[in-house]
Amino acid sequence: MVTVNHNYLKLPGSYLFSTIGKKVKAYQAEHTDARIISLGIGDVTQPLVPAIIDSLHKAVEEMAHAETFRGYAPDLGYDFLRNAIAKNDYQDRGCQICADEIFVSDGAKSDSGNIQEIFGLDNKVAVCDPVYPVYVDTNVMAGRTGFYNTQRENFDGVIYMPCREENGFLPELPEEVPDLIYLCFPNNPTGGAITKEGLQQWVDYANKNGCVIIYDAAYEAYISEENVPHTIYECEGARTCAIELRSFSKNAGFTGVRLGFTVIPKELVRDGVALHDLWARRHGTKFNGAPYIVQRAGEAVYSTEGKAQLKEQVGYYMRNAKTIRESLANAGFSVSGGVNAPYIWLKTPGKMTSWEFFDYLLEKANVVGTPGSGFGAQGEGYFRLTAFGTYENTLEAISRIEKEVSL
Amino acid sequence: MVTVNHNYLKLPGSYLFSTIGKKVKAYQAEHTDARIISLGIGDVTQPLVPAIIDSLHKAVEEMAHAETFRGYAPDLGYDFLRNAIAKNDYQDRGCQICADEIFVSDGAKSDSGNIQEIFGLDNKVAVCDPVYPVYVDTNVMAGRTGFYNTQRENFDGVIYMPCREENGFLPELPEEVPDLIYLCFPNNPTGGAITKEGLQQWVDYANKNGCVIIYDAAYEAYISEENVPHTIYECEGARTCAIELRSFSKNAGFTGVRLGFTVIPKELVRDGVALHDLWARRHGTKFNGAPYIVQRAGEAVYSTEGKAQLKEQVGYYMRNAKTIRESLANAGFSVSGGVNAPYIWLKTPGKMTSWEFFDYLLEKANVVGTPGSGFGAQGEGYFRLTAFGTYENTLEAISRIEKEVSL
Repeated sequence: MVTVNHNYLKLPGSYLFSTIGKKVKAYQAEHTDARIISLGIGDVTQPLVPAIIDSLHKAVEEMAHAETFRGYAPDLGYDFLRNAIAKNDYQDRGCQICADEIFVSDGAKSDSGNIQEIFGLDNKVAVCDPVYPVYVDTNVMAGRTGFYNTQRENFDGVIYMPCREENGFLPELPEEVPDLIYLCFPNNPTGGAITKEGLQQWVDYANKNGCVIIYDAAYEAYISEENVPHTIYECEGARTCAIELRSFSKNAGFTGVRLGFTVIPKELVRDGVALHDLWARRHGTKFNGAPYIVQRAGEAVYSTEGKAQLKEQVGYYMRNAKTIRESLANAGFSVSGGVNAPYIWLKTPGKMTSWEFFDYLLEKANVVGTPGSGFGAQGEGYFRLTAFGTYENTLEAISRIEKEVSL
Repeated sequence: MVTVNHNYLKLPGSYLFSTIGKKVKAYQAEHTDARIISLGIGDVTQPLVPAIIDSLHKAVEEMAHAETFRGYAPDLGYDFLRNAIAKNDYQDRGCQICADEIFVSDGAKSDSGNIQEIFGLDNKVAVCDPVYPVYVDTNVMAGRTGFYNTQRENFDGVIYMPCREENGFLPELPEEVPDLIYLCFPNNPTGGAITKEGLQQWVDYANKNGCVIIYDAAYEAYISEENVPHTIYECEGARTCAIELRSFSKNAGFTGVRLGFTVIPKELVRDGVALHDLWARRHGTKFNGAPYIVQRAGEAVYSTEGKAQLKEQVGYYMRNAKTIRESLANAGFSVSGGVNAPYIWLKTPGKMTSWEFFDYLLEKANVVGTPGSGFGAQGEGYFRLTAFGTYENTLEAISRIEKEVSL
């Protein structure tokens, strides 16, 4: 008799952003005139920059001729891209990461979801709360958690590390020692950043206790302050305890292009096994490489023109972030984030829950944000806005919020 | 204490095609003059056809402008592609498959590997032997099998269905009833096809016993004979027992472009749960869609020009298949396949094992094939050649084999 994976049934409702999408679609269908502005899902709006477009066209043209056509890519990524990543993202920052420690993928969401597979089901997982839902949901689906606890509004068997105003939205070292620790800095959803010293404490803690840190650095390009690490490998000892996940979605606008990578240093050994080898085996068995043309687009991100153009693009979004943060602060909202990250995290006004504020904003201002409670129980009473809209839409959305929301 | 997924450690050695790649690389490094011809890994060599190239360039250009830029794709695929698939691959053949039963992915290898996730770990898996390694390996990695049995050279707890010359390379209905049955027709690696009546028996068996068939139809475009089904949904009752996996790699040369899809009919319910919903949840949580430009390329596969150009491309490879099959048969080899599939399956000459013949061919003829034993114990003594080379290389390879291999 066929059985299904009952762990899937532990998940309450659907994936957060699917739910939001459906709600917005339903509202729009009933209010065809409404000009809805989304500062919700973290999707970019600026087109790919010229250096990347040129690279894509060139690669497409190569695919048109037998002499330059490319079939299956190397399992772990083309050398031209792995070399560019190793040099630019790591070696130029003084971090000893080699090209063969980089695994090119179709994006950080896949990697965030799949990385747990190489670990045993008995590992205890720690996550920040609020948190990007993929870390928890994929561990639930694998059976690494208990059931959903409707009172606490989170899963049994997971160590949740609260990140609220009281602790500056930074997790504290957990008392119960976890096995796998998911950290994301600059943070989604709170927009908070961690200092190098702060992150060093986590690396030391992981090395001391034999934990593995899964470090999501998808928003690294948005760091504007000194002393905020761009990669966990800036910390001493990270090579023996940390896996890093990176994305091209937010630094280069690849949300619809799909490219990311995972770094696993060869010294990272647990349970007598090099995690690098396990992940290589997973890639070799379940994945056939990112598209050639997309890997060439990734290479262009590191070209001189690409870098200059993308710096401008990131600057564009950060102007949005600044606008949102400062305008809402001036209007009396309690806001954080938006300095080293494209997310602004605000407290909902009055006694509104996150979803109440979502519905309120959608109805009154036709503005879509993301309910903080969608990221975890400790996100209740908070709300996320993204800086990824156009500048015009961002101004318009803020002006509507200022007008419609009385504090 | 962090534990790794010990199921990974049950896998002997590395993924088949990675091993072959390493062996060939090593040989080439030692024999820099050798002009090696690969008829090994099933990778295509013909460039993308003009209709697809045009579509890619056009989509790239859309990504260059804010008005036409596309970010995150819909989780399950763009409607333009899902509609084209539903119409062309199913409805035009009289099969009732709707667009919302189609899940667009980055390729059939990912889908073949990931589909097992939605099932419980207690399901018993049946596979053909020989078989595409991904089906078994991914079930091993999930923990759905026992250990590797070095005597039988396969995994405990898996039902292997021998496909050898004696039964015309077609599996027989297993006596022990499995839960999940992987079938691939036209077959990789044997190149064999199943008739509609033959497949209907499997559908009836699955419905009667409550099994789920995971039907890999990646080579459908190579069917040349009447009465060979292009999809399992040509069989009555398949909607309540079958999942179909499809690829753009072999019908359109997308091995380096990456696109595929899975079909799960809404009536397919097991254990009280619609499998469609579980797979949708997996997609929503762990995958962020195939690239927009790639989905547009997929759409072009179904355009009038695309269809005509691809018919010619498939014909090109099938001429190779015919050449290999007929030449080797004339030379005295025992061959099968190559009529409805781009694979030719031959018996190794003399008493050579599959790997002995691999090494022998590589050394004597500088021709790379795939050892039958790499696909399972029952593949021992067989060898796979693919029709995906260029015509010139195929002729040259065959001529070398004829010259160097004495029967």
